[in-house]
Amino acid sequence: MLSYLEIQLMPVETIAWTGEAVRIIDQTVLPCQVRYLEITDLKTLWEAIKTLRVRGAPAIGIAAAFGCYLGIRDSKAQDFETFRAELAGVCEYLGSARPTAVNLFWALRRIQDLAERMRDHPVEMIKHEILDEALNMIEEDHRVCRSIGRFGAELLHDGMSILTHCNAGGLATAGYGTALAPVFFAGEQGKHIHVYAGETRPLLQGARLTTWECREAGIPVTLISDNMAATVMAQGKVQAVFVGTDRTAANGDVANKVGTLGLAILAREFHIPFYVAAPLSSIDMAIESGAEIPIEQRNPDEVTHSFGRRIAPEGINVYNPAFDVTPHRYVTALITERGIVGPPLGENLQKLFAQIKAK
Amino acid sequence: MLSYLEIQLMPVETIAWTGEAVRIIDQTVLPCQVRYLEITDLKTLWEAIKTLRVRGAPAIGIAAAFGCYLGIRDSKAQDFETFRAELAGVCEYLGSARPTAVNLFWALRRIQDLAERMRDHPVEMIKHEILDEALNMIEEDHRVCRSIGRFGAELLHDGMSILTHCNAGGLATAGYGTALAPVFFAGEQGKHIHVYAGETRPLLQGARLTTWECREAGIPVTLISDNMAATVMAQGKVQAVFVGTDRTAANGDVANKVGTLGLAILAREFHIPFYVAAPLSSIDMAIESGAEIPIEQRNPDEVTHSFGRRIAPEGINVYNPAFDVTPHRYVTALITERGIVGPPLGENLQKLFAQIKAK
Repeated sequence: MLSYLEIQLMPVETIAWTGEAVRIIDQTVLPCQVRYLEITDLKTLWEAIKTLRVRGAPAIGIAAAFGCYLGIRDSKAQDFETFRAELAGVCEYLGSARPTAVNLFWALRRIQDLAERMRDHPVEMIKHEILDEALNMIEEDHRVCRSIGRFGAELLHDGMSILTHCNAGGLATAGYGTALAPVFFAGEQGKHIHVYAGETRPLLQGARLTTWECREAGIPVTLISDNMAATVMAQGKVQAVFVGTDRTAANGDVANKVGTLGLAILAREFHIPFYVAAPLSSIDMAIESGAEIPIEQRNPDEVTHSFGRRIAPEGINVYNPAFDVTPHRYVTALITERGIVGPPLGENLQKLFAQIKAK
Repeated sequence: MLSYLEIQLMPVETIAWTGEAVRIIDQTVLPCQVRYLEITDLKTLWEAIKTLRVRGAPAIGIAAAFGCYLGIRDSKAQDFETFRAELAGVCEYLGSARPTAVNLFWALRRIQDLAERMRDHPVEMIKHEILDEALNMIEEDHRVCRSIGRFGAELLHDGMSILTHCNAGGLATAGYGTALAPVFFAGEQGKHIHVYAGETRPLLQGARLTTWECREAGIPVTLISDNMAATVMAQGKVQAVFVGTDRTAANGDVANKVGTLGLAILAREFHIPFYVAAPLSSIDMAIESGAEIPIEQRNPDEVTHSFGRRIAPEGINVYNPAFDVTPHRYVTALITERGIVGPPLGENLQKLFAQIKAK
């Protein structure tokens, strides 16, 4: 079975710092090509986030933190006010890449708060600390993923099959994933877990990334079209659903890749638990409910074309929301790095964040 | 708006007899190419059904009837016993092309019953009658589609949006469709109906065929990925779901393109009526429930490849059932050519078939 060491040695490192550049695996060409990109400028990094070369809420947050550094490392600012204004511009630009994942804004806020705390220090020192903060985020993400894995693995028993959607594995984080982390952790414990991966139209993150990642990790994986989820559940083939989240509201409403809402409703219908792996960085206590989460609308070409080939006629309308919102009543529990949060989600999230603040 | 004449003049004729050959539009290359095939032999016709060049339960039934004729027209049989055995072999072969759609078996049984009734006539005359019966089926199908359209249109009002899955339009029949017939008919009545088309992975009959057919008919159509259905419903964008069926059991359980079950469950969750357009030829009163319907498993390549391009890694498992079964409790009503059948579906189907038999 998979050992932690093997996971560390997995042939993919989603995001890293080379000393000069942000190095990412280009997720738009997986699994047909394993191509790494070294990004040295802000605009290219923005494009990489926008086009999903780097994707997954936690990984986007880390990429954005490095983006802050790329955006200000050549700044000529001599005083903090000028530097702060430049950083604010960089953050605004990065924030425009993708509106739904809160980790992006969480990371930008964190970098800006750091700069603010260091306002009395020389600009060059602040730049250095920003890079350090981005590197810290990678380390933190590793710990968060492992912790989610440990808590989530308690929900899995040997021989179980789970269904997941999109990719909330190592490729979505700097560590070994959120929704897939419990599967990897259970594997370390000697449990045999089987994964059904929904292909996740239109961009096929499930077909391209989750299957690839499971295969590389030695986890048995079966690919299905998204619309086969109901029949897989009806036939008793899966015993739990595990998904990630791009932003979870204070009441427990979950924004995640489009298709998640349907899975949650089906899971309830078939009495299958529906778990959301949610790093605290993806929980937005500033918004009351999912109704306040902005949903990114993406290019119609993603639906009408597949790998450059046209699959639908011209002259039709297309609706292409990247995410949907699952009301908290469908969520069995959130799996955070501080433990499993069950219903009532709103109340229990309040308590959890109050505890963290009190420490 | 669309007139009946315009529908007749639509640039597509799904299936026709040229005098020598079965002429079909090749649905595997739509909408990028509009290519017609003239088929003169049994094996090519079998391949056309198997590979979905001709598809949709009613159209498959008609194709199979012509297939019977192609299979026996050059028979050298002089006596009925020999001819009957040859015809039985042809029917068995055609029946192996696709196991789920009952129309295929219904059509084969009808041709064999016709031959049986004519057993005292010369073989050449029986051959001629078989061709006539296939031609009759085209005419009947036109009437059935129009009738389903007329009844179904009563469920539609001006300004309504409906969601459909796969293609149960004119391309699935010889006429103007089953699930889409009410939309076309409502159009004739001056009602403006908007169609949301689920793309229908893996073979994209919704993206390729339903959108094309609606566009050609002047019906506004919006394409979505299958996994966007829940969010479209949650946002109140659709007021009804209309789908076809490949086989409906005596208790009202509906086998249809995979993904239908999920839509039915979501529709109930969002209090949206779920209608199944079911020609009587697709209702199999010989089986009690959907559990008895054989579900065709198709080639994994349909999921791992899209238009010849690989979209998933090698070395993974794939599950690719072509159909799923929707329990009757999720079905608001069946729309047949004899009227709308509401719950309890089992009881009301019994009554309907008893009435028909009594006539």
